[in-house]
Amino acid sequence: MLVVQKFGGTSVGDLERIQNVANRVSESRKAGNEIVVVVSAMSGETNKLVGYAEHFSSNPARAEMDMLLSSGERVTASLLAIALTVMGFPATAMSGRKAGILTDESNTTARIEDINSHAMKEVIKDGKIIVVAGFKGVNKNGDVTTLGRGGSDLSAVAIAGAIGADLCEIYTDVSGIYTTDPRIEPKAKKLDKISYDEMLELASLGAKVLQNRSVEMAKKLNVNLVTRTSFSNEEGTLITKEENIMEAPLVSGIALDRNQTRISLMGVKDRPGIASDIFNKLAQNDINVDMIIQNKAHDGNTNIDFTVPLNDLNDAKSVVDSFVKSGEIQADSYNEDICKVSVVGVGMKSHAGVAAKAFSTMADNNININMISTSEIKVSMVINEKYAELAVRGLHDAYELDK
Amino acid sequence: MLVVQKFGGTSVGDLERIQNVANRVSESRKAGNEIVVVVSAMSGETNKLVGYAEHFSSNPARAEMDMLLSSGERVTASLLAIALTVMGFPATAMSGRKAGILTDESNTTARIEDINSHAMKEVIKDGKIIVVAGFKGVNKNGDVTTLGRGGSDLSAVAIAGAIGADLCEIYTDVSGIYTTDPRIEPKAKKLDKISYDEMLELASLGAKVLQNRSVEMAKKLNVNLVTRTSFSNEEGTLITKEENIMEAPLVSGIALDRNQTRISLMGVKDRPGIASDIFNKLAQNDINVDMIIQNKAHDGNTNIDFTVPLNDLNDAKSVVDSFVKSGEIQADSYNEDICKVSVVGVGMKSHAGVAAKAFSTMADNNININMISTSEIKVSMVINEKYAELAVRGLHDAYELDK
Repeated sequence: MLVVQKFGGTSVGDLERIQNVANRVSESRKAGNEIVVVVSAMSGETNKLVGYAEHFSSNPARAEMDMLLSSGERVTASLLAIALTVMGFPATAMSGRKAGILTDESNTTARIEDINSHAMKEVIKDGKIIVVAGFKGVNKNGDVTTLGRGGSDLSAVAIAGAIGADLCEIYTDVSGIYTTDPRIEPKAKKLDKISYDEMLELASLGAKVLQNRSVEMAKKLNVNLVTRTSFSNEEGTLITKEENIMEAPLVSGIALDRNQTRISLMGVKDRPGIASDIFNKLAQNDINVDMIIQNKAHDGNTNIDFTVPLNDLNDAKSVVDSFVKSGEIQADSYNEDICKVSVVGVGMKSHAGVAAKAFSTMADNNININMISTSEIKVSMVINEKYAELAVRGLHDAYELDK
Repeated sequence: MLVVQKFGGTSVGDLERIQNVANRVSESRKAGNEIVVVVSAMSGETNKLVGYAEHFSSNPARAEMDMLLSSGERVTASLLAIALTVMGFPATAMSGRKAGILTDESNTTARIEDINSHAMKEVIKDGKIIVVAGFKGVNKNGDVTTLGRGGSDLSAVAIAGAIGADLCEIYTDVSGIYTTDPRIEPKAKKLDKISYDEMLELASLGAKVLQNRSVEMAKKLNVNLVTRTSFSNEEGTLITKEENIMEAPLVSGIALDRNQTRISLMGVKDRPGIASDIFNKLAQNDINVDMIIQNKAHDGNTNIDFTVPLNDLNDAKSVVDSFVKSGEIQADSYNEDICKVSVVGVGMKSHAGVAAKAFSTMADNNININMISTSEIKVSMVINEKYAELAVRGLHDAYELDK
């Protein structure tokens, strides 16, 4: 098999751990696999460098930040290649540039545009292991760029797509994706397989493991993604396309998102295009609106409720204020004490009654539902935050996810 | 003026010192200079990385070492550019690649082959300060290379030559070149100016400041080199071509080299080409032979004496042994308790009696001279090591270098 293995910062956090990674990679090589390894900087390194930069400037130039931050991955990649070679498994370290990772020009948040995998394919043909410094690429001017948060995962997925790898393994300190957060529901079980779309909806369950950007790219490039731990041999969770999952369960997991605020707009002027104006202006300010509910109150006024991430709240308030000042909105209110509980499963598509069971579970637990939004594979409910754990456990039981 | 300023590891050893460097560069910019800065890694960083590599392998692959070691300079260059920009002096950080430094393919000891200064010239034209990560370049395949010991100085000199800089300032923790080692002769004086050739002969006096490789390149590219300290505003020493030095002094300085061993070959077979055979074989083994004396003893045998650096002694012994075994040399002996004292000055060319004064100074101090070698601008004498300080002080006095 041709396998891409990505090891994050904690997995390469010190020299002993880098040696462990070398051992693991060499085992996989001995088993007959061809391997491209992608590594992050040693944990703490990137934060140290950011701290250095902040010593001088609260807003350093992004091109310089990229040159600064891209040094950490070079160190890990070189060291791992040296460790593998001395163990008798010839390995070559490659920068993002050498690996052919071409990005746009958005320094510190670059997007991968293309991968020229020629150099990598030559080295693989020579029977060598490749160790790529993750998180980095070059733009068309040849300047170093970095890919932003989760960038090394993106490097790995994009490389797996470009070289047609059979598998892209993402190693972290978490053993896989669970049916729900085990800290809330100890009966949570690790999933063997899950579809890309489910993974995207279960983002909060995988937040510490995988960012949506990586899952989206894996879906687009049809890369079989596995998240597993580098600290044991435990099998992880395979994230793959729906067709690869036989007998998809009705519900795969219960996600909880505490990071939402509800914004209520009352007495919204009843003119065509008013909602469009409000949400366009929010979008222009890079505010991620999640759920939206619009309803006409019996007094004839229109009310609009929506949720935004907590850290977008201040920006959202300024946008809303401008409409309040112009008289197009009579009143606004904000509620931070909410959370969003989601039931996710591709099996929902072909089964009725999944949503109904979610609502009745809330009712059985005397939890009032503030907002509801549904998609083909998801039912999301906004509830008072104090009921978060109760709701998650109730739903986990109701769909028998511990079975 | 167009100035290249190079700051070594101790000058950028921590964030405060990087700020000091930024202050110094900005002062020079305010005075109207156009500036290219070349920086080393923060002191200790390179050794740390070498230590990491040695944890895994005593003989790591050189390409991986270059990728590993080249990360330290990136960090310093980025940070200094950030610091300058926030102070209101727009600066751009450049890797060796971006600065157009093209080298051969000898990883870890690459030689600069060419500099494509187009990118640098554009940025200078824009009125920006350039901060180049020293010590690094790329080979014709686009792979990172490093230039070996003193590599950042080489980067600076080569860049100064390529952009036609008026001055190349090398900042270290030493304030310049002295007439002799001030730890031996407290009356030693700092030289204002010295020629390239004198500097090359005085290598031991500048060993902690400048490597010969950098001086040779400065001579070849006709770069005015200044060594000075980054810890005060004290003027340094200008190293320039002989024509730029009016009224060159008879003697510029007294150099001491303790790092030599004398090898004596007795009863060398008297056949044509024997000396050539011995010294070719030493050269093939990368042994730096310094002084050579050949003389016919009165018994008709030929004796050859020569000196090599201490750390080449074992290799030299093996070479000599092979000739002893083949019977072409009757006996060999080794003397490590020697040192070489040199009197250096371009003024010697046009003045007689300089060598004679050196010999009489030795005689006055009852120091026996073992070997003598002279060049146009130098008289070197090998003496017993225990007389090293006595000889240096005697010569310093004799040529009135404290005046």
